[in-house]
Amino acid sequence: MTNPSLLILPGDGIGPEVMAEVRKIIDWYGANRGLAFDVTEDLVGGCAYDKHGTPLHDDTMAKAQEVDAVLLGAVGGPKYDNLDFSVKPERGLLRLRKEMDLYANLRPAQCFDALADFSSLKKDVVAGLDIMIVRELTSGIYFGEPRGIIEEGNERVGINTQRYTESEIDRVARSAFELAMRRNKKLCSMEKANVMESGVLWREVVTEVSKDYPEVALSHMYADAGAMQLCRWPKQFDVIVTDNLFGDLLSDAAAMLTGSLGMLPSASLGAPMANGRPKALYEPVHGSAPDIAGQGKANPIACILSFAMALRYSFDHGDEATRLEQAVEKVLADGYRTADLLGEEGKQPVSTSEMGDAIVAAL
Amino acid sequence: MTNPSLLILPGDGIGPEVMAEVRKIIDWYGANRGLAFDVTEDLVGGCAYDKHGTPLHDDTMAKAQEVDAVLLGAVGGPKYDNLDFSVKPERGLLRLRKEMDLYANLRPAQCFDALADFSSLKKDVVAGLDIMIVRELTSGIYFGEPRGIIEEGNERVGINTQRYTESEIDRVARSAFELAMRRNKKLCSMEKANVMESGVLWREVVTEVSKDYPEVALSHMYADAGAMQLCRWPKQFDVIVTDNLFGDLLSDAAAMLTGSLGMLPSASLGAPMANGRPKALYEPVHGSAPDIAGQGKANPIACILSFAMALRYSFDHGDEATRLEQAVEKVLADGYRTADLLGEEGKQPVSTSEMGDAIVAAL
Ligand SMILES: CC(C)[C@H](C(=O)O)[C@@H](O)C(=O)O
Ligand SMILES: CC(C)[C@H](C(=O)O)[C@@H](O)C(=O)O
Repeated sequence: MTNPSLLILPGDGIGPEVMAEVRKIIDWYGANRGLAFDVTEDLVGGCAYDKHGTPLHDDTMAKAQEVDAVLLGAVGGPKYDNLDFSVKPERGLLRLRKEMDLYANLRPAQCFDALADFSSLKKDVVAGLDIMIVRELTSGIYFGEPRGIIEEGNERVGINTQRYTESEIDRVARSAFELAMRRNKKLCSMEKANVMESGVLWREVVTEVSKDYPEVALSHMYADAGAMQLCRWPKQFDVIVTDNLFGDLLSDAAAMLTGSLGMLPSASLGAPMANGRPKALYEPVHGSAPDIAGQGKANPIACILSFAMALRYSFDHGDEATRLEQAVEKVLADGYRTADLLGEEGKQPVSTSEMGDAIVAAL
Repeated sequence: MTNPSLLILPGDGIGPEVMAEVRKIIDWYGANRGLAFDVTEDLVGGCAYDKHGTPLHDDTMAKAQEVDAVLLGAVGGPKYDNLDFSVKPERGLLRLRKEMDLYANLRPAQCFDALADFSSLKKDVVAGLDIMIVRELTSGIYFGEPRGIIEEGNERVGINTQRYTESEIDRVARSAFELAMRRNKKLCSMEKANVMESGVLWREVVTEVSKDYPEVALSHMYADAGAMQLCRWPKQFDVIVTDNLFGDLLSDAAAMLTGSLGMLPSASLGAPMANGRPKALYEPVHGSAPDIAGQGKANPIACILSFAMALRYSFDHGDEATRLEQAVEKVLADGYRTADLLGEEGKQPVSTSEMGDAIVAAL
């Protein structure tokens, strides 16, 4: 039997540093748990543009389609800010999502006990928080046509199109209901059905799908009210399902509120492949943090926990995922902190690689 | 000389209750400060639909175009949830904004000292917070064409269009820069220029306008990062300018974070009329709160402070606006609390009208 295959795309900024720590974890699983992976590495984002003039080479895209799972670090940086829109680092990531058809983006917003004090929210508001945002990832205003900047009369007009088909809404709603079934059977769907017809259709289709999940308590909320409620009392939610753009803002806000931003992984899942595994890409929620890149300051935990999600969702090793998650909890409980987890306390932070080593040791 | 004219549209839910308190304030200014207004009242939202079959009658629309300022309570309620999109209560409000061309929506997010404990954020994160979000209000995905739900193949597709012209961006950017000049000369513009071409144009035009305001420090942030930063450390901002949809979510999140949601007013301003006053509509940030409507529980302060904004922005009575704002601060310092401002403390709340009376007394 061949080993499952992983494509690793460290990307830009702190991406390569945090991914180096993930490699240690992968190696540990190969050496100690009989879980060996065939790993290849390639470029995405600004570094791919530097080498190939495109943020994602066709060969890399083809590889991503073939492997069992993709692990991505982060893309982007000020160096690329003035690039033409079509070759910006982000286009590489967006192309991966679109062409792999990774329609369900799972973003847990979880508050780690050891870090509850670190949130800008009061402790009782966030302690124990554990919600899951399911964001539609391959459609909506991110990809809708027509789009662009056109001339009209004597001025330019910027245009983007929000577009959702019934089947696009249906499939991501099903992913969310399935997750809700495995969690607390509570799902809140967010849109702006009071303002946008695409939100009206969204609400209708989600309501329709809910008939197949009678055990799940479904509610609907306008996305602005959702943003408010996330800030006020996030524990009222369990699973949230929303579109690509709302999901972008709401999941980032939720992640920040936990105080554990450098800790949060994500999974982007598509339809099952021939081998039964879903097409899948795993990446941390945080960005490329160019301001601290290359200094050994980055927190590798979000990226490491993204690999834990891969173990769970791609390789059916929920037990090994839990092992890794517990190792992370232990290391935190033991007081290991990268710089982002220290605040003003004046303690000495551990480096990116010290954190990785500590987690390997805890395994 | 004739009195300046006000059109009052209490709307639905708690709208009529809170507006009744504003009437007391208006009367006080007429009786005591020689500031008399010609006030007319009319319907908007669900109540207008109940009477006329439309959430905004053409006669009301015409009146709104003629008066010096419009004061609005709130619209919407579950009774109207299943109405056809075209006659939903919100359409009345959106028609007012669009036809009066109220392109600059000013939403202060301010933390009242007396209420800093009431935020879900830690006290040091919010105490003293005073930022202003300028939201574009008449364009973008709220109004762009094409829109609707169409049949395509054998399924339905929900479509909305984000559309911004250079001049639409230019004018709201100028409003924001003008405000920044009168405040701390710091402006942050938010879009998703990494994903949306309309955001690319937005960033370009705002940058262009900034040349006319060399004293203002301009920064740009992606809207998802903006949502995060608002949650993490809102005091880093002074004035924020953003589009209609991002502004909807971001300003609501910011308002909630202050802990002072029931306190926050807004102004929606358009171009100057023949008399030099801008077209203007003032409304509280909070919604119609149907769950507590008619029970005397609503907090009238947001609506009262909206009238203070009217005094400042429509009637050039900044001094009288400050008087009213100070009266509100005093009443809060004296311990007056409507139910929404009490939390779990078990104290006895004052009613909507008791709060209004106290503010009149403080004036
Ligand atoms: C990098 C960017 C294109 C991306 C997005 O907007 O989706 C990021 O913000 C995210 O949330 O994964
Ligand atoms: C009521 C609704 C149409 C409105 C909006 O979406 O603009 C409201 O949320 C607001 O922010 O004023």
